[in-house]
Amino acid sequence: MTPKNIASIITIGDELLIGQVIDTNSAFIAQELNKIGVSIKNRVAVGDNFNDIWQALDEQSKIANFIIITGGLGPTADDITKPLLCQYFNGEMVMHQPTLQHLEYLFKEVLKRPMIDRNTQQALVPNVCNVLLNQVGTAPGMMFTKNETTYFALPGVPSEMKWLMNNCVLDIISKKASAAFILHKTAVTFGLGESFIAEKLIEFEKSLPNNIKLAYLPNNALLRLRLTGQGVDKEILSQQLNNLFNNLIDTLKEHIIYNEDATLEQIVANLLTSKNQTISTAESCTGGYIASLFTKNAGASQYFKGGIVSYSNQMKNSVLQVPTQTLETQGAVSEATVIAMATQCLQLCNTTYSLAVSGIMGPDGGTFEKPVGTVWMAVASQSITKTKKIQLRYNRQKNIEHTCQQVVNMIRELIVDNS
Amino acid sequence: MTPKNIASIITIGDELLIGQVIDTNSAFIAQELNKIGVSIKNRVAVGDNFNDIWQALDEQSKIANFIIITGGLGPTADDITKPLLCQYFNGEMVMHQPTLQHLEYLFKEVLKRPMIDRNTQQALVPNVCNVLLNQVGTAPGMMFTKNETTYFALPGVPSEMKWLMNNCVLDIISKKASAAFILHKTAVTFGLGESFIAEKLIEFEKSLPNNIKLAYLPNNALLRLRLTGQGVDKEILSQQLNNLFNNLIDTLKEHIIYNEDATLEQIVANLLTSKNQTISTAESCTGGYIASLFTKNAGASQYFKGGIVSYSNQMKNSVLQVPTQTLETQGAVSEATVIAMATQCLQLCNTTYSLAVSGIMGPDGGTFEKPVGTVWMAVASQSITKTKKIQLRYNRQKNIEHTCQQVVNMIRELIVDNS
Repeated sequence: MTPKNIASIITIGDELLIGQVIDTNSAFIAQELNKIGVSIKNRVAVGDNFNDIWQALDEQSKIANFIIITGGLGPTADDITKPLLCQYFNGEMVMHQPTLQHLEYLFKEVLKRPMIDRNTQQALVPNVCNVLLNQVGTAPGMMFTKNETTYFALPGVPSEMKWLMNNCVLDIISKKASAAFILHKTAVTFGLGESFIAEKLIEFEKSLPNNIKLAYLPNNALLRLRLTGQGVDKEILSQQLNNLFNNLIDTLKEHIIYNEDATLEQIVANLLTSKNQTISTAESCTGGYIASLFTKNAGASQYFKGGIVSYSNQMKNSVLQVPTQTLETQGAVSEATVIAMATQCLQLCNTTYSLAVSGIMGPDGGTFEKPVGTVWMAVASQSITKTKKIQLRYNRQKNIEHTCQQVVNMIRELIVDNS
Repeated sequence: MTPKNIASIITIGDELLIGQVIDTNSAFIAQELNKIGVSIKNRVAVGDNFNDIWQALDEQSKIANFIIITGGLGPTADDITKPLLCQYFNGEMVMHQPTLQHLEYLFKEVLKRPMIDRNTQQALVPNVCNVLLNQVGTAPGMMFTKNETTYFALPGVPSEMKWLMNNCVLDIISKKASAAFILHKTAVTFGLGESFIAEKLIEFEKSLPNNIKLAYLPNNALLRLRLTGQGVDKEILSQQLNNLFNNLIDTLKEHIIYNEDATLEQIVANLLTSKNQTISTAESCTGGYIASLFTKNAGASQYFKGGIVSYSNQMKNSVLQVPTQTLETQGAVSEATVIAMATQCLQLCNTTYSLAVSGIMGPDGGTFEKPVGTVWMAVASQSITKTKKIQLRYNRQKNIEHTCQQVVNMIRELIVDNS
C-alpha cells in the first residue's frame, strides 16, 4: 500500500456535542499537519460514549493513515479514552515509570499539593503504546500502530495538545509521511462582496490546473482568497503556485490590501512597525475589543501605547474632554464626539495615530434618528482627521466585529496615504 | 421505526480542514438542538470535495434522523453543496421566485449594487427540496426528506445559519422529534484541580442513575460541572435532576461560586447589577481584554463605566498618575504600580470598584527577578484595596486569559465580602 498522507481528527467529549465548548484544537492540528504535507480528510466529534468512539476509530481507520485523537484522557470518570484504546489495541494497563516520576515532581515542586491515587493512575498506560511524555501536564500522550495506520491520543487541554504536537507528533508524522507537499498562498481584499470578486476571477479560475484550488474565505468585510497547490516536487510546486498567485494579484490589483494571510490588526501592526510609528485607541461601543486585538500579538508594545475605553458619557467628558455641550446637543454617537475622542486620545497617549468609535451595538439603545447599528468613527494624526458613519444591521457581536474592521481599515488607509 | 431524535452535523469547506477557520457553527447548532431534546451523535467536517461530501451524507444517514449541513452554498466555484444535493436527491434545478424577488430587493435597496448573473443563480434550487427563505442573506436554505431522515442545508455564514435555525429549522425539528427531553444543570467552581474535585465526588458519582451523567469542563482556573439528564417526562426528569444537583452543591459547598452555567464576567455582572454598583478597569498586560469581556454582554453600560489600557509606562504615568519614581524604582510590574493604577482608575471612572493588572505575558520581556508570567493585580473600592501576585507558566494567549480570570475572581470575592 502506498502511503496516503491522509489524516483524520477525532475529538472526544460530550461538551463538544452539546455546544458548551468550541473546538479550537482541530484548527491547530489541521494547520500544522498541512504544513508538513498531510491532508485532513475528516474531522469527527463524538461524545464520551464507548460505542461511538469505537465506531469512529473503525471508520477513520479505513480512510486515514494518521489518526489524531484528542480528549477524554483526564483523571475523572467521564474520561474513557485510555481504557477504551487499551481494549481497542488489545493491551493491558501498566505503570509508566517516567510519567510517574514526572507527576511526582509536578505535584511536589510546581502544584505543591499532595498527590492522590487518582493522579497516580494517570501514569497507567496500555502496554501496547509508545508513551509521548507530556511535560506540560498530567495526562501522557500515546501512540499506537495497527496495520498501516498510526494513532495518536492527546489530551484535550489546548496547551498540552499543542506542546505534544510540536514536540513529538509532528516529527513522527513527518518521518512516516511520503513526500507529497501542500502549499498555500493567501491574499486579502477588503470591503467587496464575494460574488463581485468571483466575477473578476472567472478567467483566472478557468486557467487553474487540476492540482491548484482557489477558495473564498469571507470574514465580515474581509475576504481572503487562498490558492492551495499539491505536488510531489516542492520546488516546482512553489514556482507554479507563485506564478498563479502573481496572476491573481494582477487581476485584482487595487482590491488587494495584503499579499499574505493576516488579520487587519496584523497588517496595521506591520505597517506601523516598519515606519517606527505608534497608535492609540478611544473606544466606546467596542469596549476595549480593538485594543485587545492589537495587544494579542507579541511585541505589541512597540506600536501600541494604550487606549481609553470611554463607555460612559462621564468618561468621554472627564478623560477624553468631549465637551458636555457636544454630548448634550449632538449626542455620544456623533461626528463631533468621535473627533473630540480621537484628538484627545492622540494627545493623551502621545502616538502617531489614534482612532475613535462610538455607536449603538444593540440589541437595545436605538432611536428613530440613530437606530441600532449606527456607528461614528474617526482616525487622526497630528495633521489629519478623517471621519465616517456606518449603519450596521447585525447582532451585537457582529456589529462589534464589523466596527473594529471598518475603523482599523480606516487607519490602514491613513497610514498608507501618509507614506 | 421509532423516531430516534439523533442529529448529525456536517460542516463543509476546505477552510475547516486546513485550520484557517475555527468552526463556531457546530457549537451553536448543538446547543439549540439539545434544548429541544435532540442529541448530536456525530459532527463531521469535510472539504469542498464531491466524493467526501457524498460519503458523509451516506454515513450520517445511517445513524441520524436529522442532518444539518452547513457551508458551500455561496456564489463561487468552490461552493458545490447545492448541485451535489440536487444530484443526491435526484432533483433538477429550478428558479425559486420568492428567493429571486428577495435577491432583487436586497441588491436594489440594501446593497445598492447591480445584480449580476452569478447572484441570480443563487435563487436556483433543486425541485425536490423545501426552500427555507433566507431573509438575512443571499443563499437560500433547503430542506430534503429521504426515508426517515430530514436534511437541512444552511449557509456557512454564522449570522445567516443562526437566523435560519431560529426562524425555520428548530420549529420543524421540534414538530418531527419525539418527546424525549434532555436537560442540563451546571455549577461553576474556581481555582481547584479537576482531580481534587473528582475525589470529593466519588460517592456522588456512584449514586447517579443511568440516565444522568456528570461532566467536568475545565477552562483555565474555572471548572464547570455539568449534570445531563435524559427522560421521557419533562416534569419528572426536571425534579430528579434538581435533587441530584442540590446534592452536588451540598457536597462541594464552599467550592461552588455559581449555580448556573456562566462566565466569571457574567457572574460579576449579575452581582453588580443586583446591587446597582459599577466597575472600571485599568489594564496593562491584558490590553483591553478584560474590558472587552465585560462589554461583550448586552446591557453592560449599566455596570461597566469604562477603562484605561495603559500599555506604555508613559500612559501609566500621565493618565493613571503612577509616580515616575514608582515606575523607575519598583517597575511597571509591581505592587505599588497596580495599587496606583486601581486607585486612580476608581477616581477617574467614578465607579464602586476598579481592578488593575500589570504583568509580563511573553514570549519576551522577562528578567531574572520578574520572569515571563509574573503578574501583579489589584482590586479596589473606596475603602479597601487588595493585591495579589501570581506566576503563570503558559503561552501569551493563555497567560492573558488566566490573568483575566484571576483578577475578575478577585473582584467577585471583594463584592461578595462587601455584601
